[in-house]
Amino acid sequence: MRQLSILKIGGKLLDDDAQLGSTLSAFANIKGPKILVHGGGKKGSEISRRLGIEPQMVDGRRITDAATLDVVTMVYAGLLNKTVVAKLQALGCNAIGLSGADGNAILSNKRGAGAIDYGFVGDVEAVNNELIINFLDNNLTPVVSPITHDGRGQLLNTNADTIARMLAVSLAQDFEVTLKFCFEKNGVLLEPTDDASVLSSLDANCYEQYKKSGVISEGMLPKLDNAFAAKSGGVREVWVCGVEGIFKQKGTQIL
Amino acid sequence: MRQLSILKIGGKLLDDDAQLGSTLSAFANIKGPKILVHGGGKKGSEISRRLGIEPQMVDGRRITDAATLDVVTMVYAGLLNKTVVAKLQALGCNAIGLSGADGNAILSNKRGAGAIDYGFVGDVEAVNNELIINFLDNNLTPVVSPITHDGRGQLLNTNADTIARMLAVSLAQDFEVTLKFCFEKNGVLLEPTDDASVLSSLDANCYEQYKKSGVISEGMLPKLDNAFAAKSGGVREVWVCGVEGIFKQKGTQIL
Repeated sequence: MRQLSILKIGGKLLDDDAQLGSTLSAFANIKGPKILVHGGGKKGSEISRRLGIEPQMVDGRRITDAATLDVVTMVYAGLLNKTVVAKLQALGCNAIGLSGADGNAILSNKRGAGAIDYGFVGDVEAVNNELIINFLDNNLTPVVSPITHDGRGQLLNTNADTIARMLAVSLAQDFEVTLKFCFEKNGVLLEPTDDASVLSSLDANCYEQYKKSGVISEGMLPKLDNAFAAKSGGVREVWVCGVEGIFKQKGTQIL
Repeated sequence: MRQLSILKIGGKLLDDDAQLGSTLSAFANIKGPKILVHGGGKKGSEISRRLGIEPQMVDGRRITDAATLDVVTMVYAGLLNKTVVAKLQALGCNAIGLSGADGNAILSNKRGAGAIDYGFVGDVEAVNNELIINFLDNNLTPVVSPITHDGRGQLLNTNADTIARMLAVSLAQDFEVTLKFCFEKNGVLLEPTDDASVLSSLDANCYEQYKKSGVISEGMLPKLDNAFAAKSGGVREVWVCGVEGIFKQKGTQIL
């Protein structure tokens, strides 16, 4: 079976030009078929505020009203996505930027309003493997922004970690997939402020214990939940790592 | 030789939801391979002002400083492009949004500073026929936004009429191309306020005379210059028309 690398980048890696540069250089050097998934960084909130739309967050998740959906579509699928694509092109990587609407790459459902109405937020329903494989076979490198669609004309804001997981699980039918969640830390840390406390691996049992004891903090939970869901969904290798982890076996391997 | 339809839409067709809806319905109904090119409409200037960046125009052309380039990348390649793609998907048209950076679709050169420094503005250098043909062969419909790149990591603001012309001329090597410049009027008007004064056709000699006598007004000149350049560049049929002209032989045919 062919190999496929999927890299998800987010957080401060997107906000800082130098960090983004070294991240993209490392990504461009990955051999073989590959996919980049990016989050939104702080740019979404910054532009939102400048437009007079105060970001609303509940439990670290953005509430996406119609005005906010316009902003995240502009920033994630426009500014960030095209900036990353142009930089990768300059590095010799034939990148193609995608939202979920493009080529019907990722179809999602608007999340129903429960205790919290998240607004125009989508939960991924289907990945268009045929489209992605056609791109990879033509030496194109998809760069996926966290905007999807419902197939009925509605764009939806979608968590980038979830998109990376769903792409990886869906493409695991056709490839041996390595999925790396890359961010500003070197992996899963036992002490949030101590980079030397990185776990070299983490299995589901330990994860449950760390969650119960509060050793693994709130902000890491959605990422790790997606990482474990990817692993149990048939993705061959899953890592949580820093920039060095892109080109080395370094960081926290999810077992 | 195979047929290819290229439709360029701009102006008020993009600003008004109902007009955009009927334009996209008409486009979705075109049989065979097709490409949509869109301009920016007023949204770029509106968002620019809300962000405190006053649009600078010289002779109807936008001066694109770094802050303005961010805005047009957000609005054209993000909000407008993805909105159009999602609406076309809902109409059963498998649209894929592209900037010139995506798949290196359209390479351009930053315009040198002459009497006027236009800033981050690109003049189209090359169209990637191979990429576009691959999409068309896979039943994908490119939706092209007026943002290109220089191949060295720089995004560039690029005139949408010019992009439509360059795409049409380049793809005329492989297709019998029909190119339509569609806007809020029904064609080239002898009396700007009288929709009944539409010319059914216009040849280069008459165009020169109308220009000299001032019958054809300033705003139409860049569009018509591109239309005539397309015709002389080997594009089989070129039209300037309104929404009805998308599905009927209606408007002004460029001879």
